[in-house]
Amino acid sequence: MMKEVVAGVDIGGTNTIIGLVDGEGEIHGEGRLATADYAFADDFVTALDSKLKEMVSGRDDLKLVGIGIGAPNANFNKGTIELATNLRWKGIIPLVRITGRKTGLRTRITNDANAAALGEMLFGGARGIKNFIILTLGTGLGSGIVVDGEVVYGHTGFAGELGHMTVAEGGRVCGCGRRGCLETYASATGLVRTVMFLLSDRREDSILRDLKSTEITSRRVVEASAAGDIIAQMAIDQTAHMIALGIANAVIFSSPETIFLFGGLAQAGDAIFEPVRKYADELVQPVFRGTFNVLPSELPEARAAVLGASALIWKELK
Amino acid sequence: MMKEVVAGVDIGGTNTIIGLVDGEGEIHGEGRLATADYAFADDFVTALDSKLKEMVSGRDDLKLVGIGIGAPNANFNKGTIELATNLRWKGIIPLVRITGRKTGLRTRITNDANAAALGEMLFGGARGIKNFIILTLGTGLGSGIVVDGEVVYGHTGFAGELGHMTVAEGGRVCGCGRRGCLETYASATGLVRTVMFLLSDRREDSILRDLKSTEITSRRVVEASAAGDIIAQMAIDQTAHMIALGIANAVIFSSPETIFLFGGLAQAGDAIFEPVRKYADELVQPVFRGTFNVLPSELPEARAAVLGASALIWKELK
Repeated sequence: MMKEVVAGVDIGGTNTIIGLVDGEGEIHGEGRLATADYAFADDFVTALDSKLKEMVSGRDDLKLVGIGIGAPNANFNKGTIELATNLRWKGIIPLVRITGRKTGLRTRITNDANAAALGEMLFGGARGIKNFIILTLGTGLGSGIVVDGEVVYGHTGFAGELGHMTVAEGGRVCGCGRRGCLETYASATGLVRTVMFLLSDRREDSILRDLKSTEITSRRVVEASAAGDIIAQMAIDQTAHMIALGIANAVIFSSPETIFLFGGLAQAGDAIFEPVRKYADELVQPVFRGTFNVLPSELPEARAAVLGASALIWKELK
Repeated sequence: MMKEVVAGVDIGGTNTIIGLVDGEGEIHGEGRLATADYAFADDFVTALDSKLKEMVSGRDDLKLVGIGIGAPNANFNKGTIELATNLRWKGIIPLVRITGRKTGLRTRITNDANAAALGEMLFGGARGIKNFIILTLGTGLGSGIVVDGEVVYGHTGFAGELGHMTVAEGGRVCGCGRRGCLETYASATGLVRTVMFLLSDRREDSILRDLKSTEITSRRVVEASAAGDIIAQMAIDQTAHMIALGIANAVIFSSPETIFLFGGLAQAGDAIFEPVRKYADELVQPVFRGTFNVLPSELPEARAAVLGASALIWKELK
């Protein structure tokens, strides 16, 4: 019995991970390409095509029906990667057109956070939920917004950049060139920046004072907090407050039923979810109190990107 | 030749305005009810039904095909008015059910700003635009958000409350019970509050110092600004900045093609649009610069509410 699978392709600056995903989110084969080895997108697509042929060769049980791609700075509307700073491919790359032409397969692309939203919708905790938002808390804060069962791409195809909501005018410097963006506070990096600020501002002892700033990670802060470190506890509380402020400002916009948190910080469990829920309820317009849940993503961290990318195609086929 | 019309019903705390609107936005008859005369919604609906019969009696050229209602605190999803503080009807009023049953006509309800968005989409400047936002700048700031041709109602039916986006934590007291909501700065009332603050903070002469604070209106501030009053000019500049901040935070969410401004403040023309456009471009995430327009609503102020309410039904019929 032949099973239809979609290639979920997660393009990162260093590596590209490929998974053959069926309509239930089961993975039937995995592969890898070294993204950074390919100076031109054309060469990458040629290698991707070969790799996919290799992955399905001899697998008479599988039928490859499409390619879903998650990539930085991807534009769903146009099928492009645009001005991605951590890829070698410069300018505007029409990756969907190149890949579709080379492979003859239905191809779609979107950014990582939108892919995460689609993965959550088809294979995770958002099954059956029509209005939700996923926040990916990593180096930055990515977001995928789903309204009435559809990812919001907007006029430009770049919608859903909640990490660049201005929450503190004149606040922290952001990688986008402005100040006070949500992700400068509400992300793994933001948590570490808050620790650094507190180490400058406060006088309490902290085990974090014995680390170089490059050694301070969100995981270490969470561990220090659990061990009773006051600076770490304050940093987590303030980070939760800013995540909640972002949630409150998203809720008044699209009134989601659930906000899913994804990424390392989300794995801190109650230490992060309890204060986020408490502050979100305080910070949101009263009419929305009690109308939304804040829950961890149900996608496995290691597989989420590939599942999400494949969901781009499965959403269309189902 | 018989023309189909929809009753656009604009329910305000004091008066209800009714217009018979055809599919091109022409108004074929108008009526009025004194909302405040009716202690109970049931009695109001009975009066509305009589008024509609009176309006179409003898008009063999018209066929009434539906009732679209714009009302404060209206919930599209549930067809209700919920806890409206400026209506006499307390609690949760299932107005769509009552009206539909009484009249036998297709009935829908939404709030004023969502109705304005629908009016703009069917009869105004948003014809042919799939992604846009309308901001109504009045006593508060209302908003209607359109994504991919559909008004965003969200899980609760109350989505699109951009006036309650927190833009300044710990900022001005808002009617919703919190502080720092966008509408405390970015509205006609917000402009007047900014004047009052500047009169406290600054030492410049101003013709506004010769008015009681209850006499200061957004129109007077705009006039004073045009006459060279420095306090008025600063107030308008700061208000434009806050409108632009709200726009910038909306653009990163849904990436609209156009943001329409509606209401008295929007009628100040270039005095408000020029600084709003300048600041919005500065404040938005760079990837969105140059991707959106800020334009005045094309609906006539006096007819907008009735046209928008009727558009609720016309959107479904078309």
